[in-house]
Amino acid sequence: MEATLSSPPLSSFLRRAPPLRRLIPLSLPPLLIASRRLRVSSCAHGSNGGRFVARPSSELRRGISENSSIVEDEKLLSLRRIFSRPDVGIDAYIVPSQDAHQSEFIAECFMRRAYLSGFTGSAGTAVVTKDKAALWTDGRYFLQAEKELSHDWTLMRSGTRGVPTTSEWLNDILPPGARIGIDPFLFSFDAAEELKQEISKKNHELILLKEFNLVDEIWNDSRPDPPSKPTRVHDIKYAGADVVSKLSYLRSHLGEYGCTAIVVSMLDEVAWLLNMRGSDVPHSPVFYGYLIVELDCATLFVDTKKVTKEVLSHLTNAGVELKTYESVLAEIESLALKGAKLWLDASSVNAAIVSVFRSACERYSSQLNNNSTNQSIHHGGPDALYQVSPVALAKAVKNNAEIEGMKNAHLRDAAALVEFWCWLEKEIENNVALTEVDVADALLEFRQKQESFIETSFDTISGYGANGAIIHYRPIPGDCSLVENKNLFLLDSGAQYVDGTTDITRTVHFGEPSKRQKECFTRVLQGHIAIDEAIFPERTPGFVLDVLARSSLWKVGLDYRHGTGHGVGAALNVHEGPQSISFRFGNLTALQRGMIVSNEPGYYEDNSFGIRIENLLLVTEANVPNAYGGIEYLGFEKLTFVPIQTMLVELSLMSPGEIKWLNDYHAQVWEKVSPLLNGEALDWLWKNTRPI
Amino acid sequence: MEATLSSPPLSSFLRRAPPLRRLIPLSLPPLLIASRRLRVSSCAHGSNGGRFVARPSSELRRGISENSSIVEDEKLLSLRRIFSRPDVGIDAYIVPSQDAHQSEFIAECFMRRAYLSGFTGSAGTAVVTKDKAALWTDGRYFLQAEKELSHDWTLMRSGTRGVPTTSEWLNDILPPGARIGIDPFLFSFDAAEELKQEISKKNHELILLKEFNLVDEIWNDSRPDPPSKPTRVHDIKYAGADVVSKLSYLRSHLGEYGCTAIVVSMLDEVAWLLNMRGSDVPHSPVFYGYLIVELDCATLFVDTKKVTKEVLSHLTNAGVELKTYESVLAEIESLALKGAKLWLDASSVNAAIVSVFRSACERYSSQLNNNSTNQSIHHGGPDALYQVSPVALAKAVKNNAEIEGMKNAHLRDAAALVEFWCWLEKEIENNVALTEVDVADALLEFRQKQESFIETSFDTISGYGANGAIIHYRPIPGDCSLVENKNLFLLDSGAQYVDGTTDITRTVHFGEPSKRQKECFTRVLQGHIAIDEAIFPERTPGFVLDVLARSSLWKVGLDYRHGTGHGVGAALNVHEGPQSISFRFGNLTALQRGMIVSNEPGYYEDNSFGIRIENLLLVTEANVPNAYGGIEYLGFEKLTFVPIQTMLVELSLMSPGEIKWLNDYHAQVWEKVSPLLNGEALDWLWKNTRPI
Repeated sequence: MEATLSSPPLSSFLRRAPPLRRLIPLSLPPLLIASRRLRVSSCAHGSNGGRFVARPSSELRRGISENSSIVEDEKLLSLRRIFSRPDVGIDAYIVPSQDAHQSEFIAECFMRRAYLSGFTGSAGTAVVTKDKAALWTDGRYFLQAEKELSHDWTLMRSGTRGVPTTSEWLNDILPPGARIGIDPFLFSFDAAEELKQEISKKNHELILLKEFNLVDEIWNDSRPDPPSKPTRVHDIKYAGADVVSKLSYLRSHLGEYGCTAIVVSMLDEVAWLLNMRGSDVPHSPVFYGYLIVELDCATLFVDTKKVTKEVLSHLTNAGVELKTYESVLAEIESLALKGAKLWLDASSVNAAIVSVFRSACERYSSQLNNNSTNQSIHHGGPDALYQVSPVALAKAVKNNAEIEGMKNAHLRDAAALVEFWCWLEKEIENNVALTEVDVADALLEFRQKQESFIETSFDTISGYGANGAIIHYRPIPGDCSLVENKNLFLLDSGAQYVDGTTDITRTVHFGEPSKRQKECFTRVLQGHIAIDEAIFPERTPGFVLDVLARSSLWKVGLDYRHGTGHGVGAALNVHEGPQSISFRFGNLTALQRGMIVSNEPGYYEDNSFGIRIENLLLVTEANVPNAYGGIEYLGFEKLTFVPIQTMLVELSLMSPGEIKWLNDYHAQVWEKVSPLLNGEALDWLWKNTRPI
Repeated sequence: MEATLSSPPLSSFLRRAPPLRRLIPLSLPPLLIASRRLRVSSCAHGSNGGRFVARPSSELRRGISENSSIVEDEKLLSLRRIFSRPDVGIDAYIVPSQDAHQSEFIAECFMRRAYLSGFTGSAGTAVVTKDKAALWTDGRYFLQAEKELSHDWTLMRSGTRGVPTTSEWLNDILPPGARIGIDPFLFSFDAAEELKQEISKKNHELILLKEFNLVDEIWNDSRPDPPSKPTRVHDIKYAGADVVSKLSYLRSHLGEYGCTAIVVSMLDEVAWLLNMRGSDVPHSPVFYGYLIVELDCATLFVDTKKVTKEVLSHLTNAGVELKTYESVLAEIESLALKGAKLWLDASSVNAAIVSVFRSACERYSSQLNNNSTNQSIHHGGPDALYQVSPVALAKAVKNNAEIEGMKNAHLRDAAALVEFWCWLEKEIENNVALTEVDVADALLEFRQKQESFIETSFDTISGYGANGAIIHYRPIPGDCSLVENKNLFLLDSGAQYVDGTTDITRTVHFGEPSKRQKECFTRVLQGHIAIDEAIFPERTPGFVLDVLARSSLWKVGLDYRHGTGHGVGAALNVHEGPQSISFRFGNLTALQRGMIVSNEPGYYEDNSFGIRIENLLLVTEANVPNAYGGIEYLGFEKLTFVPIQTMLVELSLMSPGEIKWLNDYHAQVWEKVSPLLNGEALDWLWKNTRPI
């Protein structure tokens, strides 16, 4: 059974990441299932691939589709014209949302699916045949896709009964033996293998067109330039460990498995390993690059224009060479010829890299067979180990400097939020008409005033009333609600600072909450408290704790259809693996000391209101009087310090222990955040941290 | 990762059942993992394969080994002599504890491992080579095995670092290409396949010696006769569904999967399907037999001496024919020749049956190939579907009559227990010297007075002080503690009644418990209450709830190394699958309305004391005001009604809700059980059900 709940929308759990099943190639032994990490995590706010960095929400949503809606036919025609070119020769082409690195947020120039189809939502797959064009997206985007797609496109509502998958559809509409093209850079090797297997049922062939992307061919001059802003060094005082020691750790890992090299392709892994940051994509301080680490050298494949003198010297000191981003495939080939034992994480490394390595290996071994007089060189041929990248876990377990940075960033973020809530409360009181977008924009302004602020860590979810019940809601300028005092207001937002990444949700009512709303809020809060106070033995996977977040809701037949917690990077991606706290049982990664997870239970009443309460937590050693089994017991330390609205708490439902938790939390909030405030905001904080 | 806890002893969880890993043959598709059930379940009391029915504990433990310890050498010699017989020709022989039906409790005549090795514990595997003899058992039995094994045997302490498995040992000590014999009746097909695969690493061959068991050959005249007591009809008023409808359900299931027949070999499944009971093994009201159900007929393979006239007419009415127990293999062959599509649960059906069917199928298809001029008969050849038996789940979900019987049996059992506790308290007060065995014997006497009592449902675990910390403790006459008023006393016991099966643990102190003991007891009770009060959405597997039972202990760094709940049969096995509540994540079976599970968290302080509080629970629809997701929410209804000692409760740790739970429970106990009592026992019940 895949899940506790009846048909939770896939989107609410894995979003851009393929479902876990897809992450497991059939060729891998079952044991690997346990350690295979969820690439992108599981919680409430969406991966709305916004395209601008630190712009107010009111400026979002203008772009690709608006200007291009009248020429869509032409795009399909042009694309289909390429199908029959002798160097292409395909019957269908699949255009996914991905970039070459399985990123959650991607640069505008890689938004090929949006360009081609006109549909600008973050998740979707376009498939074009010689006479049909279809776009798959999930429940979050049905309405938006209906609006944005032209008549030439068929909308495929994923997850709806009777709607085929892309491969089922291709098997259905194409005559047997068709040639289906993909850009292998845009598929993980696992995903490409699964696709290949699926379409082989109809004897279709998967054609890896790695020389050029067909959409880029028609996009031409109007295609945005690839990002080219300079990268920067992530200061050792925030990184906590230098590149040399990180690479040395990685090499020792390679050695253990008999590998001589690894391709690191996840952008946050590259940034983390090299103590570098960039601004190539919205919301995540990463830059486009591949890193190949060998036992005695390391090479970063990057647009060298982005490498400042300071970064260059930083890399040189760490023994990291530079090559152009495009030369990575050539390097993969030469690794094979060198006889490398290459570590490849087939769930993240793209199919272009893996297939180039494989063919090079084959060529190498046929060469060997031709020269088989020299038996000795039979040993030492190139080979691949398909295994989850060891970088993810290392990155997830934060060191002291990273923890310190996260704590500091959270305090500044809390100060910004307190100023914001104080301001908003007054505005609403004064009947100022503010839309959800206005509110999100104002929040951005308050955050921008904080030291070391870079940008939002995802598009702010600002949902009033019924909009709060849409888990992945994102207000659209000109088409969103006012924030008023008649219903609940849910605000899920986060920021990137130089020293840390934040992610916080608060739900408030500026008027009189109903009894129902108070009961639901209180039960969500009880779940939040139960996770926060949990103590558990080492080696406990996150999903074991998930029930604690739901118990109070379950008691009255309520629940929520998303995970309870996702990992968060330190001044990196707001969603990171491998850990999670989720009702799905697939992720067996143990919660470990130094990991950071969100704690965000919720409740959503369709067409009515939404509730979510989210703090970030650090996994720490618990202070317990016993240690049964001679092992460590772990617990959580809060990183987020922003008041929870006590007016929404139904006291009669709360246990004395839960009330104490809330009062203790507010005492801490006052103690930690008040030094950063003054004036009205300080008064507001005092008023909102009084014990109940 | 296999478990939350560090190295829990395998024995505490699966006991006779092989670990889940062993239940999954590599040849089955991964999806099957989900539905594969745990044959024997997970909780605290052991499967001490006692040999006598309803005898007092003081008579136990006399038997096989005592009389035979001086002739052990001779047994090994005789056994090895058979190795070289032309019809045998083996280098080693493996003697497991099992009977041919994977039973938890087995008849004396099948206790071959005990006879051969002298070791009488319930779990163990003996392996004899031409010059070595070794016995594997787990931590429960290390001391007992050391005492009982002669010098000719090497004790292999399973689960201890550096101790090889049986196959590792065989691979280590035998020269490559050895022939290793087993009695294929005593291995499930899965277990035999795994063994075969393991020993093939050293090119050893697995020899299935199905014509005779080598130990039986040397046991000869001293071997106890097979059980021959008459079987009986399990009244429809307790069974709730007649045989015809059960078989019809099973046949519709076969039809769905395109099968024409199924071999049912688990004794409780045979008894349940046929509404029959027997007394062939201790503690379980079952009888030795196989049942083959075809689409248009059904045959019970049983020692026909056991079939009374009444049973015969009952079977005839249901269209069930009789054949001798031994003729099952011949029938399997003829099924193959009939072209049957046979449903085989490879985790329970023994290797003799499966291998006979497979060879018959091969013969059949080679016949077909020889006559290949007739193309049409190619279709319809015999075939096997390896899938978990559909009977287990059907049996686990109790109907109203079964539930009614269980409830009534529990009330009578509660009356017996109240009389017993009232008596024991007085005896201790009067300083009567009673051993743990005396106490267990007395309990049996109180139960024997109850209507429809048959026997104990397992050997009573009567553990005073430090003995209570031994999870599978079983007191030995002449070598056990007195029960006094200076420490905790743990009593885990159960009974078989005509209408139901019970299993209950209470922990009490007859003097002054320490602060530590009260805290630990209270935390165990809090876990018990949390499970009891849990409400959860349908499709929730039991392991999701397990954390609720541990949370309070985890808060102070304590835990217990066994599961929290196992399934219980209705007037059948005290341990049954497929559901469980466990910290292992392998069992994805959802808890379903009508299932019965134990709720038995515990805490064990080595060399000091043990605590366990166990009730049986029925899964019911929860009475909740919402139904989020349009699904059913489930909860538990208590079956067990015996006071919990309130003196052991540390009130300052208990929430108001938990105190209410305890008071409500005791009010129910009084209401339900007092009508069955009078005199001192009634007074005792009144006193022990007062609110705190």
